[in-house]
Amino acid sequence: MLSKDNKILIVGLGLIGGSYAEGLTKAGYTVGAITRSASTLEYALKKGIVASGATAVEENYLSGFDIIISGLYPTTLLEWVEQYQKWFKSGALLTDVTGVKGAIVSKIQDMLRGDVEFVGAHPMAGREVSGVQNADSRIFLGANYIVTPTERNSEDAIQKCEELGRILGFGNISRLSPERHDEIIGFLSQLTHCIAVSLMNCKEPGEMAGYTGDSFRDLTRIAKINDNMWPELFMLNKKELLEQMDLFRTEFLRLRTAIEEDDIATVRLMMQTSTERRKQFDK
Amino acid sequence: MLSKDNKILIVGLGLIGGSYAEGLTKAGYTVGAITRSASTLEYALKKGIVASGATAVEENYLSGFDIIISGLYPTTLLEWVEQYQKWFKSGALLTDVTGVKGAIVSKIQDMLRGDVEFVGAHPMAGREVSGVQNADSRIFLGANYIVTPTERNSEDAIQKCEELGRILGFGNISRLSPERHDEIIGFLSQLTHCIAVSLMNCKEPGEMAGYTGDSFRDLTRIAKINDNMWPELFMLNKKELLEQMDLFRTEFLRLRTAIEEDDIATVRLMMQTSTERRKQFDK
Repeated sequence: MLSKDNKILIVGLGLIGGSYAEGLTKAGYTVGAITRSASTLEYALKKGIVASGATAVEENYLSGFDIIISGLYPTTLLEWVEQYQKWFKSGALLTDVTGVKGAIVSKIQDMLRGDVEFVGAHPMAGREVSGVQNADSRIFLGANYIVTPTERNSEDAIQKCEELGRILGFGNISRLSPERHDEIIGFLSQLTHCIAVSLMNCKEPGEMAGYTGDSFRDLTRIAKINDNMWPELFMLNKKELLEQMDLFRTEFLRLRTAIEEDDIATVRLMMQTSTERRKQFDK
Repeated sequence: MLSKDNKILIVGLGLIGGSYAEGLTKAGYTVGAITRSASTLEYALKKGIVASGATAVEENYLSGFDIIISGLYPTTLLEWVEQYQKWFKSGALLTDVTGVKGAIVSKIQDMLRGDVEFVGAHPMAGREVSGVQNADSRIFLGANYIVTPTERNSEDAIQKCEELGRILGFGNISRLSPERHDEIIGFLSQLTHCIAVSLMNCKEPGEMAGYTGDSFRDLTRIAKINDNMWPELFMLNKKELLEQMDLFRTEFLRLRTAIEEDDIATVRLMMQTSTERRKQFDK
């Protein structure tokens, strides 16, 4: 289990990395950070979010940490591990926060030194803003935290990774295989973002904004989207995402055809199904 | 303008009709109701939502009201007006709460006696529950209230109809032609309900409910839908709705193709567009 003596490093102080740092510091852990931006580090130190930090990766600093949490985008994470794992402390635990797993977990485990371990994790939390200035560990309260271990992970490392989620206040901590994670996330998260983005691309808002109810606002909230991160997530889960998109297109076309053909029975049946199923998602 | 001497009748005490009755009574108006259900009427009288009521339409009762607000579904409203307008008080104002206008406004105005007036109105508020037991005029606070007058309406009647919206606490009261109303509502409301229903029809929730974030819940909230009312609204606005659905299908397919072809530039551009446009809908 984690002890307060475990020194924790956050690599990349964006919204999520910064919120991890803030929450773990508040919980009494000694947290350090590596970020390329001097102003980000200065801000985090000034606010007491981290106890120490560096703007470049150096052996002396990196080798002092027992837990390394990557707040990097997935492809950047792969490059970072390849380049710097040589300086990891022996016995260190590496984990991450990225929203795709199939494309990175096995690659990292394949390349990783035998005396350190990587356990993938996906904190399902976010906001429509980014950067350490918006960091706030309260975004994790009650949210889902999915750990994606493989048969190459030790139970001890998996439990440490789960403990991080508990310390940060996540409400539901669970384990999924990287493949099942990507299928579920492809449907629940990536597909919904695709829907919101497509809907907002349909037409200029113009006067419509004045006639908008909560339904439209709720449905399109995620259309304000980080256009650096999400294309990367989509590409790394392309096969699964395209399948989910096609599934949705089929159902949407089924409803459209029923409406066009005055097939009220099918329209009602689809509404009854959606009503029944949606109830299962009530908290 | 409306005076407290104006007696107001609500026809049909569902969620919206009941909330109108509750709000207008609270504002000091004398409100009556016609509803077929004896238990609904009993409930409304007991709760003090209405001052009087009837479970059948009778000349003596109906002819006593200056303002008649229909809380009926659109096709029922048409039949009701045809049958009972003979008993309307001379000079009475008739308005409604339905979410389609092109299919009903001109039909009602065509058939209506010359000494009474119909002004269409659409209170853009609702909940995922129905019935007078859930009536609560607070659902109107800050919401949109669209009046859809035609050249056959007097300015006085239009203003009275708008005043009802102000009394009930709506935040934004505006005028649109019935045709423009249906186009905007087809996109903002009907299309979004079609999307939510289709998405929930894609697959059984199963274990997914445990991994769901706020985005998915927000996007599918309206998938719990009244399967009596909405098919009727869809059919009465079919041409417009199908156009909006096809517009969405085109954009969704554009995004799908870009993802499939690794066309990151298009994916990012669509995300930048959606982010920019969505900001215009922030309250």
